[in-house]
Amino acid sequence: MSKLIKKSRLTGQPPETLLYEGKAKSEQVRITIIDYDEKDFTEQEARSVEECIPFRNKQSVTWINVDGVHRIDVLEKLTACYLIHHLVLEDILNINQRPKVEDFGEYVYIASKMLTLDAAKDDIAEEQVSMILGKNFLISFQEEKQGDVFDGIRQRIRSGKGRIRKMGPDYLAYALLDAMVDSYFVLLERLGEKIEALEETLVLNPEPAVLQAINKLKRDLIFLRKSVWPLREVVHGLTQMESGLLSENAAVYYRDIYDHVIQVVDTIEAFRDTVSGMLDIYLSSLSHRLNEVMKVLTIIATIFMPLTFIAGIYGMNFNTHASGVNMPELNWRFGYFFALGIMATTACVMIVNFKRKKWF
Amino acid sequence: MSKLIKKSRLTGQPPETLLYEGKAKSEQVRITIIDYDEKDFTEQEARSVEECIPFRNKQSVTWINVDGVHRIDVLEKLTACYLIHHLVLEDILNINQRPKVEDFGEYVYIASKMLTLDAAKDDIAEEQVSMILGKNFLISFQEEKQGDVFDGIRQRIRSGKGRIRKMGPDYLAYALLDAMVDSYFVLLERLGEKIEALEETLVLNPEPAVLQAINKLKRDLIFLRKSVWPLREVVHGLTQMESGLLSENAAVYYRDIYDHVIQVVDTIEAFRDTVSGMLDIYLSSLSHRLNEVMKVLTIIATIFMPLTFIAGIYGMNFNTHASGVNMPELNWRFGYFFALGIMATTACVMIVNFKRKKWF
Amino acid sequence: MSKLIKKSRLTGQPPETLLYEGKAKSEQVRITIIDYDEKDFTEQEARSVEECIPFRNKQSVTWINVDGVHRIDVLEKLTACYLIHHLVLEDILNINQRPKVEDFGEYVYIASKMLTLDAAKDDIAEEQVSMILGKNFLISFQEEKQGDVFDGIRQRIRSGKGRIRKMGPDYLAYALLDAMVDSYFVLLERLGEKIEALEETLVLNPEPAVLQAINKLKRDLIFLRKSVWPLREVVHGLTQMESGLLSENAAVYYRDIYDHVIQVVDTIEAFRDTVSGMLDIYLSSLSHRLNEVMKVLTIIATIFMPLTFIAGIYGMNFNTHASGVNMPELNWRFGYFFALGIMATTACVMIVNFKRKKWF
Amino acid sequence: MSKLIKKSRLTGQPPETLLYEGKAKSEQVRITIIDYDEKDFTEQEARSVEECIPFRNKQSVTWINVDGVHRIDVLEKLTACYLIHHLVLEDILNINQRPKVEDFGEYVYIASKMLTLDAAKDDIAEEQVSMILGKNFLISFQEEKQGDVFDGIRQRIRSGKGRIRKMGPDYLAYALLDAMVDSYFVLLERLGEKIEALEETLVLNPEPAVLQAINKLKRDLIFLRKSVWPLREVVHGLTQMESGLLSENAAVYYRDIYDHVIQVVDTIEAFRDTVSGMLDIYLSSLSHRLNEVMKVLTIIATIFMPLTFIAGIYGMNFNTHASGVNMPELNWRFGYFFALGIMATTACVMIVNFKRKKWF
Amino acid sequence: MSKLIKKSRLTGQPPETLLYEGKAKSEQVRITIIDYDEKDFTEQEARSVEECIPFRNKQSVTWINVDGVHRIDVLEKLTACYLIHHLVLEDILNINQRPKVEDFGEYVYIASKMLTLDAAKDDIAEEQVSMILGKNFLISFQEEKQGDVFDGIRQRIRSGKGRIRKMGPDYLAYALLDAMVDSYFVLLERLGEKIEALEETLVLNPEPAVLQAINKLKRDLIFLRKSVWPLREVVHGLTQMESGLLSENAAVYYRDIYDHVIQVVDTIEAFRDTVSGMLDIYLSSLSHRLNEVMKVLTIIATIFMPLTFIAGIYGMNFNTHASGVNMPELNWRFGYFFALGIMATTACVMIVNFKRKKWF
Repeated sequence: MSKLIKKSRLTGQPPETLLYEGKAKSEQVRITIIDYDEKDFTEQEARSVEECIPFRNKQSVTWINVDGVHRIDVLEKLTACYLIHHLVLEDILNINQRPKVEDFGEYVYIASKMLTLDAAKDDIAEEQVSMILGKNFLISFQEEKQGDVFDGIRQRIRSGKGRIRKMGPDYLAYALLDAMVDSYFVLLERLGEKIEALEETLVLNPEPAVLQAINKLKRDLIFLRKSVWPLREVVHGLTQMESGLLSENAAVYYRDIYDHVIQVVDTIEAFRDTVSGMLDIYLSSLSHRLNEVMKVLTIIATIFMPLTFIAGIYGMNFNTHASGVNMPELNWRFGYFFALGIMATTACVMIVNFKRKKWF
Repeated sequence: MSKLIKKSRLTGQPPETLLYEGKAKSEQVRITIIDYDEKDFTEQEARSVEECIPFRNKQSVTWINVDGVHRIDVLEKLTACYLIHHLVLEDILNINQRPKVEDFGEYVYIASKMLTLDAAKDDIAEEQVSMILGKNFLISFQEEKQGDVFDGIRQRIRSGKGRIRKMGPDYLAYALLDAMVDSYFVLLERLGEKIEALEETLVLNPEPAVLQAINKLKRDLIFLRKSVWPLREVVHGLTQMESGLLSENAAVYYRDIYDHVIQVVDTIEAFRDTVSGMLDIYLSSLSHRLNEVMKVLTIIATIFMPLTFIAGIYGMNFNTHASGVNMPELNWRFGYFFALGIMATTACVMIVNFKRKKWF
Repeated sequence: MSKLIKKSRLTGQPPETLLYEGKAKSEQVRITIIDYDEKDFTEQEARSVEECIPFRNKQSVTWINVDGVHRIDVLEKLTACYLIHHLVLEDILNINQRPKVEDFGEYVYIASKMLTLDAAKDDIAEEQVSMILGKNFLISFQEEKQGDVFDGIRQRIRSGKGRIRKMGPDYLAYALLDAMVDSYFVLLERLGEKIEALEETLVLNPEPAVLQAINKLKRDLIFLRKSVWPLREVVHGLTQMESGLLSENAAVYYRDIYDHVIQVVDTIEAFRDTVSGMLDIYLSSLSHRLNEVMKVLTIIATIFMPLTFIAGIYGMNFNTHASGVNMPELNWRFGYFFALGIMATTACVMIVNFKRKKWF
Repeated sequence: MSKLIKKSRLTGQPPETLLYEGKAKSEQVRITIIDYDEKDFTEQEARSVEECIPFRNKQSVTWINVDGVHRIDVLEKLTACYLIHHLVLEDILNINQRPKVEDFGEYVYIASKMLTLDAAKDDIAEEQVSMILGKNFLISFQEEKQGDVFDGIRQRIRSGKGRIRKMGPDYLAYALLDAMVDSYFVLLERLGEKIEALEETLVLNPEPAVLQAINKLKRDLIFLRKSVWPLREVVHGLTQMESGLLSENAAVYYRDIYDHVIQVVDTIEAFRDTVSGMLDIYLSSLSHRLNEVMKVLTIIATIFMPLTFIAGIYGMNFNTHASGVNMPELNWRFGYFFALGIMATTACVMIVNFKRKKWF
Repeated sequence: MSKLIKKSRLTGQPPETLLYEGKAKSEQVRITIIDYDEKDFTEQEARSVEECIPFRNKQSVTWINVDGVHRIDVLEKLTACYLIHHLVLEDILNINQRPKVEDFGEYVYIASKMLTLDAAKDDIAEEQVSMILGKNFLISFQEEKQGDVFDGIRQRIRSGKGRIRKMGPDYLAYALLDAMVDSYFVLLERLGEKIEALEETLVLNPEPAVLQAINKLKRDLIFLRKSVWPLREVVHGLTQMESGLLSENAAVYYRDIYDHVIQVVDTIEAFRDTVSGMLDIYLSSLSHRLNEVMKVLTIIATIFMPLTFIAGIYGMNFNTHASGVNMPELNWRFGYFFALGIMATTACVMIVNFKRKKWF
């Protein structure tokens, strides 16, 4: 539940207060600088923000990746160096920011969510990724070093393969966003497998545990949707943005991501339909089971109640000596078989009746 | 329920009648004047409306806060002094006004709702907050003195910390709206906790009380939504408004609130989905319970009905002397054990049968 | 149901046929003329249409109110006198016209619904109100004389209090519309009370009568919505209309009504949500009741079936003389207590079992 | 079901193939020519298409009505004579065309559906009506001669009453569309009656037949909606169309039809809400019935199981001679009444208990 | 399920990597070249991509159809030859591309889905069809040779019948799209038959298998919808596109396809409504069955419990010799008939009671 309620600032705080709201961390913020153009490439880990300053005016593309947003002083220095608006810094620190894109003229601020599967908890882990796209630089901020999703891009820059070294920071931003959207597909695949697994157990064994699993899925989908819907607008905003920072053919690439985001949205909606269908199946399986149980009860009761009644009749203690019509069967030669015969006939009639009704 | 039906004027009254509709109050209206610019700051409580007049033409920012809207004469004098349209006065008095923003050229009228948690009743308390934003003044109207939400802002003005003393009344209006939107997050957190608590009891103990709690939550969410949806339009209107009263960089701030309002709306929708999912769980828990109850009944009946029948057979009074075939078992040496054996076998068959069906 | 299906013209009739479709009425059409400006005021009941002619060219505001639209000849004469398009006359006669506003240049035609509570039938009574707003006149048409909703306005004109005598016919039209929208709030309050009353009986006593009451409410809300939704467009149209007939500050007033209509729409939607939630409660109350009933049955059956079986065992007639192992209990000294003991033990085990399952 | 799946062309056929898809018919195509202006009027049945040619260049309004679209050759000749695009001819032949309007400059093509009640089958009969509206002609195509809906229009033209003879073909097209929309109201009235009838039987007798009737209604409404929704766009398109073929005041008339179509749409939506509410009632009636049945069972079982148990006790064969404590009641003077007394007391307690629970 | 989750690229791969994701295939890619104008026609199967080069600058229309997209090298050569953007090649290879249309100036890229019925699996088979429409050429890409849907078009080109040989590649693209949309109708017809078949078994035999069939249908409709919705936008985009590649009268044809796609969408929605109605019927059939079962049980129990009780009474062993009031009936002359009479009377009362309640 707690994943659904989040606020950027503690109530009562002045709106422009810089405040990190994630868990307190003692670790150092890690700043990596990758600087490249078609020919050259340098990669270094910065020990202090000051190391970033020389890259500010270089013509080559500079990608500054910041892992950890808990050290306000470091981030303040860095953004001051690149003349970033203080509200942007606030949004970067606010790890519950809604995905958005804002054009500040000199740079574009992009906030998005990286969703990965926390295998240990079998739950969705959300991490905020902020990007500041400038003329010749891209600064990206992650909450923690979970860099695997971006590692492929680093590798491509290092190796110089593909298009990335020939293009500007707008292409780099595209590559990062694309990597994030790709990670959504991994999530969806996992959810798809869960749905498939649930569907099988659903029919075989309609247990309350299944219902809870369905509900967990439902909530995961609500959560996913809450993250992806605004991303759609973000990417759409980027395809439409008339900014000098985005080169002309960047639109083609952003349209490509847009296609993928729409595909994610479509799949989420289709999953939601499927999951809500599963609830119907669950409920009707319960009803069906109840029907089956009640049939068993009814069959047993309907067969044995008349039989017990007949046995009860011949268990009555009427005095057969008082008159010849007082239960003369008791003294008949084949009275016992007569009684058993009536019972057998009754039982058969009942059974045939149920067979005709197709109750078993 | 009554929270959902509200009308601004008593039917049949001329539309422009000034009429306060809240509970009758004997208290004095409290007017506080805070006047500040980057250098100076004065704060005073006005004993009469006349004390507000000198501030009208001052270049510094004047914030007049009115606690209590039940004294029509006081408010009429105040609005007359600032040349406010009589329809605005009406809207201020009408405590059931829908949140809205209207641009009157010389000033902008903003109506919004402050929602706080009434801890005593564990219910949502709604208070109307009206603002008149002028060139160099902001007049705010609250129903009652519940000023804690705005106290932080007062404190910031007094201390001169942050940006507020350097900015105009448009920033002040932003700060007030921001404080109100912040209070929604507190509400949502409380509702989130309630939802979480309910979810646990829901599965353990599907009582009708749970259903009523779900319904209370549902209605609270409907109520919240009714307040927040129009606020979204209000804030959007403010970000789009082309008024000389809103400085150019105010749009950035109002966009910030807009983000938060959207987040509130998203969370309400996610909560609604969750709560409606809880109803499904409740209903299916009831079904599941019924299944369990019926299984117990069926198992008991299915085991004991045949046994009772067998006992009934050997309770029949057929005359064993009448012939050798009239219940000879009664005179068998081990007749009793024979009967008990048949019973035990029948019971075992039934039990094995149920085990196979996984009924217990 | 019949309230929901209505057609303007009998099928097969030429579209421009003038036809009154309400119930046939023998009463006279009643025409009242109120003529006023800031200084003067005359009020008279016209015996014939001809009496309206002199007012046609007067500069003062003329309000002609027609009670009853069943006399086509009278209406034809009146509209001819004011040069009204024949399609408008048709719409006036058609008492099932959808609320709409149409600008004919020289005049504006407004069709709306007055909804009042028919206390006798405890049902919603619908009456069509048409208005023709001209340069210096307003002609209003009502189905029947139920003038109380407009009486307040008449009183204000007579007394000269408020703004109405100083303003033109556009303000008068606003006042009439406002009075009608006000009457919707009365209806909503009544519906709100009904909902509240139902909610209480709902939980205490889930009877089919409650279900029917819920359904009645639902249908009333569908009906209300069908009337109010188009009114929203009508009022919105009026706020947007660029007509010389509407003075510049009229927009402020129409925006006021628009706010109220939106409030009505919001409340209807919230009521619909509430009522559909009540259905869920009703259904789950039924389920809960069934569970309770079944528990009683199961407890009784589970306790008494084994006991009856035990009694049945000792009611068997095995010959205790045939051997020492043929039901020796029957001849035990404390055989009876032994049997009763087994029974008591069995019952206790069952009861403890149910207690543990919290079945009672 | 089959009414919902329809395709215009057999798969694999070249798209421009002319193909009639209705049932093969041997009857002749019937062509009626009505030519009129304010003064003159001629009406004739054409034996061959050639008879239509002289009317092509006449200034008077020519209405050519074609009953039957199964003779491709006849239609080809006719449309060739009026220079109609071959795609239009295709659409005319395709009796499953979606309602649409297309402006071809020289003429406007309008496709719509006439829905009538097939009284024999108590089902909705759909017939496609195509119209080609030109400068001075209107050609209408119907599937079969079911001309009653248009007969009123013919009569009006013949008699010269009303406006029709004074207006152009655009007014004629309006009159035809209006007649078709009118026929929808007849359908809705019939459906409304069915709904009302169902509602009564629903509560009294919740049989599966009722459910099937509800479903039939539901499907009829889906079908109706599928026909009417596109018609809305068609008529809206006509009110907005800037074509020289539509005179200026035609817009007023088309707006009139638009109002009616909207009313049909509103009513369909209201019916859908009502019908889906009926399903809820049906389901809850079933639940209520089950509750009633279970109460009867529980009452009977709860009363008689203890009684039978008591009778069972005194039916045990413990040897009263073995000891004085072995069922001494059997030898009591009033033992029998003692047993009956216990039974009566038990039954009373149970009955009082149920009375208190208000089970009967 | 797996049909619903699809991603274009393996995560972590550079976005511009060319990658085929379908099943690995050893078969050759098959390239067919059809070149035609009004007079001439040649058709050939190309053994290498080089054979396509001569057609590049021919004025006649060249249709290159590529069956199989698993040979990246072949496709790269072909697209290079026609100067196609590498992102388009990527989209062609990505068999999970969402239907879309993109205008690249020199050519238009169209991605769409061909849905056919896989009769063997009774499932929907999806195949991606990409088209590149240039000035004088059309290149189409299919996953596998399932060319039957396009065979009709080939035949028409060969025979020179119809309009196709007289028109440009835009008409050819139209013909291909039209053939694909036609294949959707075949699918819908099959689904419609399934729905009809299910509806019958639904009422007669509400088995869980029926529920699974309903769910399969539901998922097929979700899948269909996911494919068709974006196609709607594609075709709409084509009708609106202002490209020199689309001749003026092409819009008329594309509007025709648009009509059909809308019809498909409408039918899917209507099917969805129908299928969700079937679920309601299924659930209420289950409820109805339960009611019937419970009635049987209740009737049997209510009749036989009192009878068994009476038999139990006269099975009590009270000593008739102890006093004259200890079960004197046992010694009555007609005691047995007296007991049987009481039983018969009780049974009759019960049966009459049930008859009155219309339980059978």
